[in-house]
Amino acid sequence: MVAANPLVDDRDVELLLDEALDLTALTRLPYFADHDRQTFALVIDSARRLAREVLYPAYRPMDEQPARLFDGRVVVHPRLRELWPRMIALGLTAGPRPYAVGGQQLPLAVTNLATAYLMAANLSAYGYVGLTQGAAHLIEAFGDDALCTTYMKRMYAGEWCGTMALTEPQAGSSLSDVATTATPTDGGHFLINGSKIFISAGDHDLTDNIVHMTLARVRGAPPGIKGVSLFCVPRRRFAGDRLVDNDVAVTGLIHKIGWRGLPSLALAYGERGDCHGWLVGEPHRGIGYMFQMMNEARIMVGLNGVATASVAYHESLAYARNRPQGRPLGAKDPAAPQVAIVQHADVRRMLLRQKAIVEGGLCLLVRTSRYADVAAHGTDPAERERARLLLDLLTPVAKSFPAERGFESNTLAVQIHGGYGYSSEYLPESWLRDQKLNTIHEGTTGIQALDLLGRRAVAGGGAALVALAEEVQRTTRRAHATGLDGAWAGAVGRAVTAVTALTAELGGRGRRGDVDGMMAHATDYLDLFSTVIVAWQWLELAAAARERAARDPSWRDFAAAKLAAARYWLATELPRVDHLVELCRSGEDSYLSLDPDWL
Amino acid sequence: MVAANPLVDDRDVELLLDEALDLTALTRLPYFADHDRQTFALVIDSARRLAREVLYPAYRPMDEQPARLFDGRVVVHPRLRELWPRMIALGLTAGPRPYAVGGQQLPLAVTNLATAYLMAANLSAYGYVGLTQGAAHLIEAFGDDALCTTYMKRMYAGEWCGTMALTEPQAGSSLSDVATTATPTDGGHFLINGSKIFISAGDHDLTDNIVHMTLARVRGAPPGIKGVSLFCVPRRRFAGDRLVDNDVAVTGLIHKIGWRGLPSLALAYGERGDCHGWLVGEPHRGIGYMFQMMNEARIMVGLNGVATASVAYHESLAYARNRPQGRPLGAKDPAAPQVAIVQHADVRRMLLRQKAIVEGGLCLLVRTSRYADVAAHGTDPAERERARLLLDLLTPVAKSFPAERGFESNTLAVQIHGGYGYSSEYLPESWLRDQKLNTIHEGTTGIQALDLLGRRAVAGGGAALVALAEEVQRTTRRAHATGLDGAWAGAVGRAVTAVTALTAELGGRGRRGDVDGMMAHATDYLDLFSTVIVAWQWLELAAAARERAARDPSWRDFAAAKLAAARYWLATELPRVDHLVELCRSGEDSYLSLDPDWL
Repeated sequence: MVAANPLVDDRDVELLLDEALDLTALTRLPYFADHDRQTFALVIDSARRLAREVLYPAYRPMDEQPARLFDGRVVVHPRLRELWPRMIALGLTAGPRPYAVGGQQLPLAVTNLATAYLMAANLSAYGYVGLTQGAAHLIEAFGDDALCTTYMKRMYAGEWCGTMALTEPQAGSSLSDVATTATPTDGGHFLINGSKIFISAGDHDLTDNIVHMTLARVRGAPPGIKGVSLFCVPRRRFAGDRLVDNDVAVTGLIHKIGWRGLPSLALAYGERGDCHGWLVGEPHRGIGYMFQMMNEARIMVGLNGVATASVAYHESLAYARNRPQGRPLGAKDPAAPQVAIVQHADVRRMLLRQKAIVEGGLCLLVRTSRYADVAAHGTDPAERERARLLLDLLTPVAKSFPAERGFESNTLAVQIHGGYGYSSEYLPESWLRDQKLNTIHEGTTGIQALDLLGRRAVAGGGAALVALAEEVQRTTRRAHATGLDGAWAGAVGRAVTAVTALTAELGGRGRRGDVDGMMAHATDYLDLFSTVIVAWQWLELAAAARERAARDPSWRDFAAAKLAAARYWLATELPRVDHLVELCRSGEDSYLSLDPDWL
Repeated sequence: MVAANPLVDDRDVELLLDEALDLTALTRLPYFADHDRQTFALVIDSARRLAREVLYPAYRPMDEQPARLFDGRVVVHPRLRELWPRMIALGLTAGPRPYAVGGQQLPLAVTNLATAYLMAANLSAYGYVGLTQGAAHLIEAFGDDALCTTYMKRMYAGEWCGTMALTEPQAGSSLSDVATTATPTDGGHFLINGSKIFISAGDHDLTDNIVHMTLARVRGAPPGIKGVSLFCVPRRRFAGDRLVDNDVAVTGLIHKIGWRGLPSLALAYGERGDCHGWLVGEPHRGIGYMFQMMNEARIMVGLNGVATASVAYHESLAYARNRPQGRPLGAKDPAAPQVAIVQHADVRRMLLRQKAIVEGGLCLLVRTSRYADVAAHGTDPAERERARLLLDLLTPVAKSFPAERGFESNTLAVQIHGGYGYSSEYLPESWLRDQKLNTIHEGTTGIQALDLLGRRAVAGGGAALVALAEEVQRTTRRAHATGLDGAWAGAVGRAVTAVTALTAELGGRGRRGDVDGMMAHATDYLDLFSTVIVAWQWLELAAAARERAARDPSWRDFAAAKLAAARYWLATELPRVDHLVELCRSGEDSYLSLDPDWL
């Protein structure tokens, strides 16, 4: 095992910050006006140091000794108690939020670069922060002043934790089947009754209180998603100045195969008829509120996927440099010393493939976060709308690409470690386990695919794809200007055109009533779309790296590696486009027309 | 969880036995002459029943409670003690071996169909049998009478177990760097000294003795693979009638992430200077002997990959049929009951993809085994040679396709289970862990790729590819005769032609001295080759299923599913051929020319 895993490549982060995505330009927007390149660097650097020095050393102990259930309460790993205040002290919990609520008005693009280190170091530990952030933001956005004062402030300050309590045993991904009930009372609160499952951090002893943002139906509400409301349901509620038990009981601890420092719970609300919940916003609009937060949550999952692939990539790179084994092809002298396995072409293939997935993914995540920043804080309404379109379009890709391809990347890190990779004495297998969750939670890959093709890509007559094409053109112009091989930009441009034409055709099919035909290959469409989007990131990264190396020769090797990864993606992945377009278009219906009883 | 997982589809096995690969025709060869369709069915059925009734119920307990190290000895799971004699009683340990050594002269193609059930039920339990079989076969093939009497007979009878002790800590996949030494003595034995690692079943308390087939160098032997010899090194040796300790010590237990019922050990030979080993065959020819067994071992790994994907496929199929969640696309009534998730197109995609991998893989494994049978026992020398060529050619594919794509298949089984699939309360995650080893042991995928392209595909001027093309033509003629869409056979035929042309071109590049250029995309070549080979299996299976359904209408639904899976593979996977051919041919050198210091 290698002692000094960098978790994320510092120079890559610097390139994204400066050349590739020019995050400093965001400081021209009034909301971010107090910041500059220096403050951005400080935020990232403090997270990086905490990640390397404190969070990462705690990763393995937390994986080896998961949270336990003890007398109906969850006991977390003791190391978490020291990690929690230090993570909170970074100020990232409310980092992008306004000063008025205790935030720092930082761009999400910047806080997410910082967060990538924390996730790569110890995704479970960071999970408590991420969940609390999301839950508090829901109250900030839709709750009244009383809820903000009682809950949001304490959550942003790290005094209490938060959760997202959506899933129920009988409903899973189908939120329209939420069955938890909320009965109005005269006291301003509702009485909540029902069961939730897979609630991350749904119980623990890390903070005095836990605030569950809970979907439930007000008695008599219509069926389906139009009858689901959002409630704030604390584990303990105030009775005067005192916190008393609020009748949310742990009914089970799920033995997850990864993320083992972050417990996943089954909860029962109101078993004694005494569970109070407070309505957030209007009744029956809970799903809408949740969806407004979904982009953020999905970006967090994608970032997690990138981070989990990144730490494993760096581990396997160090291993490949240090592990001697075998000799070059055609070497004749068996007495010659063995070479490091990084000298074998196929090992370099596995490393470069990981790099392409990890760094292409990170660029996509930071770009998407940047669109979120402009959508929220841009000064020009047209620019805001355009950023919102792009944010919406890219979110399912930013969520699912790092999850699916990140899993492949983590698999390669195991493979490079050979027999050692198959043992729990080495870390890559644990990251492989961690990564698998990302294709499942916050909407499975199949659901992301339906969302992308069925809604986001075709919304507003395809306006998002028009905006996308313009963005890609900006990158292709830049690639030409830096002297990159023109064939690269040409290939990316053609692929975008092909995706656009395919989308129009499929959209037409749907409008003519053939929704099944339109959506049959939605998952292939997502794969296709993601491959093209990531090719675009690599064109950007290659151009940016050349620019950087041109002004600072010490970046030449870095740029050479970036160009190799860009070339690899364009040569091995982008050519899949033609086949995938044909597949989506052809109406190939092997599984669509399959009667399950035949199996 | 579903109670009655069938492990492997019985009708699929019957189709392979009868229509698809006509295994009964093997009984026309004298070696198999005592057998008929009935005895084949009996062998398979007895294994199937043992697998379902005895081995499978023990799988989860053995996964949950791995073997432990206790006072320097490995203690296996207590359930194994009842499983071992019952597996031995099946008679499969020496099943394909001659009557003279206690075998049953069964075709490998038949015993492997039986074995598939055992592996699917409990791969660790079967592992002890498979290792013992391989070790005993080494003695049978290359050892003298004394070794056969002392060791082989007891091993085939299940009295003692065997292992393959190749890997050393400093050498890993590089067998030419084996450093264990063997010093001749006057007593006819050698004194063995050295360390081995990753020795499966390298110690346990299941049998009185364990026989390690060990690679070592006779003192003064030349460096490299030409100086490696094969030794028989028991854990306990005879001193008169008594078994005494032979100085093979356990130095470590590796904590594998899967196959947890089969311990993997680090061993030290001769720490007290008292480890006796007996030379098997001639000195310095150990690697050659091992390679003669390698085909068999690789087919076992491939079969394991298929079996591990198969049991998970059936588990996810049952889950998908029983788990209600969501409603069809475009369904408007939220009060309507939820449908089983198998009704969602993307879930059927994941099921059909698993089926394509599992059953295409099983067909390939049984076909390859059949070539092994004809190569060993054919009466016509030309037919034997032809079968040997095909066996050699297909072995790396039969080993690596089920390992790589099986892992993908196992991932889909987890995905179908959603959040439950991410928990160890459900079984799919354990099969995912189990499967990962198959891309690593018995030669990593990268090594299989080098072996296929660098040796087997180009050997003898490409004679194997000529034989392959003829075999595929037989299948395409059959497909035409049964009335399958002619485009299917055309596509498979064209793909085989493309692979053949590519191989000739790459072989020429190698002969002209550009070995790096020839081998740069060896892993892509393996992927390409495997995709085409499996497309051929699906053409065969589709034709065979139609034939069966034509003579027995009760097979119509079965045939419909087979046709759907064939169509799926031909539509989604076979079209990747053009791109992969271009990639292998292009000389694309992103990672070949990558300087590792740039990363």
